[in-house]
Amino acid sequence: METEQTLPFAGCFKAYACSRVMLLLLLFVHPAAASSSLCQDLCICSSDILSCPQRNLTTPPTHLPRYTAVLDLSFNSILRLRADWTAVSLRSLHTLLLSHNNLHSLSPDAFTKVKRLKHLDLSSNNLTYLDEFVFEPLPHLEVLMLYNNRIGLIDRLSFSGLLSLQKLYLSQNRVTRFPLELLKDRNRLDKLRLVDVSFNRIRSLPLAELKTVPTWLKDSVYFHGNPLLCSCDLYSALSGWQQRDLRPVSEFTDNHTCVQSWSPIGGGKTSILQLHLQLNCSEVRVRDEEAFLNQILILDCDSRFRDATKNWIAPPLVNQSILLPLPDGQLQLGPLQAEDSGEYRCVVEGEGVNETVVVTVRVYNSTYGFGDGLNTAYTTLGCCILTIVLVFIYLYLVPCPCCPGKAKMAYEESCYASNLSLTNPPDPQGAPHVAFYEGKDQNGGVKCDAEENDEDGDR
Amino acid sequence: METEQTLPFAGCFKAYACSRVMLLLLLFVHPAAASSSLCQDLCICSSDILSCPQRNLTTPPTHLPRYTAVLDLSFNSILRLRADWTAVSLRSLHTLLLSHNNLHSLSPDAFTKVKRLKHLDLSSNNLTYLDEFVFEPLPHLEVLMLYNNRIGLIDRLSFSGLLSLQKLYLSQNRVTRFPLELLKDRNRLDKLRLVDVSFNRIRSLPLAELKTVPTWLKDSVYFHGNPLLCSCDLYSALSGWQQRDLRPVSEFTDNHTCVQSWSPIGGGKTSILQLHLQLNCSEVRVRDEEAFLNQILILDCDSRFRDATKNWIAPPLVNQSILLPLPDGQLQLGPLQAEDSGEYRCVVEGEGVNETVVVTVRVYNSTYGFGDGLNTAYTTLGCCILTIVLVFIYLYLVPCPCCPGKAKMAYEESCYASNLSLTNPPDPQGAPHVAFYEGKDQNGGVKCDAEENDEDGDR
Repeated sequence: METEQTLPFAGCFKAYACSRVMLLLLLFVHPAAASSSLCQDLCICSSDILSCPQRNLTTPPTHLPRYTAVLDLSFNSILRLRADWTAVSLRSLHTLLLSHNNLHSLSPDAFTKVKRLKHLDLSSNNLTYLDEFVFEPLPHLEVLMLYNNRIGLIDRLSFSGLLSLQKLYLSQNRVTRFPLELLKDRNRLDKLRLVDVSFNRIRSLPLAELKTVPTWLKDSVYFHGNPLLCSCDLYSALSGWQQRDLRPVSEFTDNHTCVQSWSPIGGGKTSILQLHLQLNCSEVRVRDEEAFLNQILILDCDSRFRDATKNWIAPPLVNQSILLPLPDGQLQLGPLQAEDSGEYRCVVEGEGVNETVVVTVRVYNSTYGFGDGLNTAYTTLGCCILTIVLVFIYLYLVPCPCCPGKAKMAYEESCYASNLSLTNPPDPQGAPHVAFYEGKDQNGGVKCDAEENDEDGDR
Repeated sequence: METEQTLPFAGCFKAYACSRVMLLLLLFVHPAAASSSLCQDLCICSSDILSCPQRNLTTPPTHLPRYTAVLDLSFNSILRLRADWTAVSLRSLHTLLLSHNNLHSLSPDAFTKVKRLKHLDLSSNNLTYLDEFVFEPLPHLEVLMLYNNRIGLIDRLSFSGLLSLQKLYLSQNRVTRFPLELLKDRNRLDKLRLVDVSFNRIRSLPLAELKTVPTWLKDSVYFHGNPLLCSCDLYSALSGWQQRDLRPVSEFTDNHTCVQSWSPIGGGKTSILQLHLQLNCSEVRVRDEEAFLNQILILDCDSRFRDATKNWIAPPLVNQSILLPLPDGQLQLGPLQAEDSGEYRCVVEGEGVNETVVVTVRVYNSTYGFGDGLNTAYTTLGCCILTIVLVFIYLYLVPCPCCPGKAKMAYEESCYASNLSLTNPPDPQGAPHVAFYEGKDQNGGVKCDAEENDEDGDR
């Protein structure tokens, strides 16, 4: 017993766990022996793959071979990923699997020595927050798995630098804010095509901003299982997604529930797609485009698929000469006639891709259009015409109170009419109603008779 | 106790393992409830990922959601992958992880419902053989992990149909034959860029065939840890790979051992790269090209990197007009002069790519070349000239034993010389030495005088 006390490892030399501890110590002490020992005792190695799951590791093995391309450290007990977790830069490492560990934090420099990572699995750990710039050194990362952690706080710059990121899995965390910056604005990740924030603690979605996100991207934004607040806007948005058969809604219909504003989180849930029955929400309109006679219209083929061939089919009676397909899959229509109304179909085809986007065009007759399609341009134009008519009525029909003679009256009329901006001086004989007068007052105004000057003086 | 006997499950309702059995039964009985139950009880789900490791599963869950893209069933106890392991076609499934199970066989139709797989991990199981055409339904598969099984037999058609396969890991099995068909011949997989057959039971490599495989592919053919038979050819091949710094040798130098032919498997091992000390093998020649004056030579830039920019640098004194870079990275040289000898360097550059391939060209002076570069063409030509000279010596210098007169001698000489095949009959006066004679014997021979006929009769 005394011997065991003086040599703490002596009692466990036969135990498997202890032999592994000794091995780990050996790896730290003798870097040169590490590579070969790793494959003999700790990992299953196959050329550039090191598979070391379920080994009770509390830290990653330090002296990994430089050629390692895949490193599987899942199902261990690793607590923290420090900056120096690997002694050498692993420039060939493209896949790092760290799922099912006890990771509670990532050092800000955790990934500086594995800059060529493409696939990083940090799922099923105890991560609570993501530092800003933590993934900055990973411009080649394509898939980032963070699901099943305890992440509550995501800094707006947490994912900056992930220039190649395609898929981000954040499901089953404690996120309270929808990370819109990933999809829009200047921090937008160009190559992103899947964002999963399902089963978090998000209470409201940025619906207006999401509406402007292209459909192919909306088709991979998963947000079901969140305690969203019920509203007709939410119903409207999801109903539109359902009509387009977008996967986040069609594949997880049962998980799209919301809570009434007075309910606590986890309280009574209502199906969002049945919300119109409770809240008397108005029906969601299908995609319509409205236009007037002779207008030029551009139809967008807002498909679920990003890179696919797009061909338009016009209604049968439409004159083919008004159709002009544009290079980016849009269709230019016009000048439109009333009979060009109808359903324009954009057929999207590609490898495993098949979708038809229907856009309903309504061309209003101009008279019908004026009454029905009252808009700013027509209102402004109408007011302008009305003003001119009123000015002419005033000029010709209202008698001048101060001028008894016809000739004088003509000069006075010229004063009132000066703001009509006639540029060519008229013939005094041939055009008696409007004339120019050379004299100007100090303010640049046209000088008339004494009464006019008095009025100027009053001003 | 009686109750427990009549209801076999009654005693274990509280036990975790039993509840899982009940859940599995439920999944089989109620397909509709399966999808949602899966994510609630059996798997961790994140949109299109289903992660179900360490669940003591003996078969895969049957009713998987159609949208599943990643299915992780590793660390279970699945025994066999039948044709009907999934009820529906999983057209989105690109990653199937089945490592660390007890799989001992794959049904020939195991993968007919997951035709879009890109990544298949069957490592660390008990597979013993691979049927022909078993992977035929997987034209999109890019990575196939089969390491750490017991595979002894690989049918030559096991990997047929894997048109997109890039990486094949077969390490730590019982394979006895190098699967050359993957790299050459008509079954060759065009996109393959890594084959790992390390730590198997291969006793000999097809060295001659491997020599003709392009260097970029040889750079990813791993075969260390096999009981290869020691020979100078093996040393020569590996020494060449080492000089080119090819990864299969440079990264696993210590594992490249061989056994003497009389040693049993597992017997005394010798480092292949030290073999020349034991077997007195000749030194391996670096890459040389030999040519003669005015010859046109094409140099191949046989690089470790497949897709990279290749630029040639000629020795400083070479006339630039003889250099013609070809589109596929080759360099045409010529017509060559003696001063064009030297080291031609092909600089290979690209993303993370940097290599210089050196080709040494030796241009022989024509006279020097004849003595030093003895080859078949020169030997044949020399023998031919020598024969003609000997024939002429015989014709002009050896006296005729049977003809005293000069005219008769001329006719006789024509007999001996008939095998020179002169086609135009010579003028009897002007060309006395060689002549034609009309008469022929029965055998088609030329008839001469009586003595000649006697000799024919003796024969």
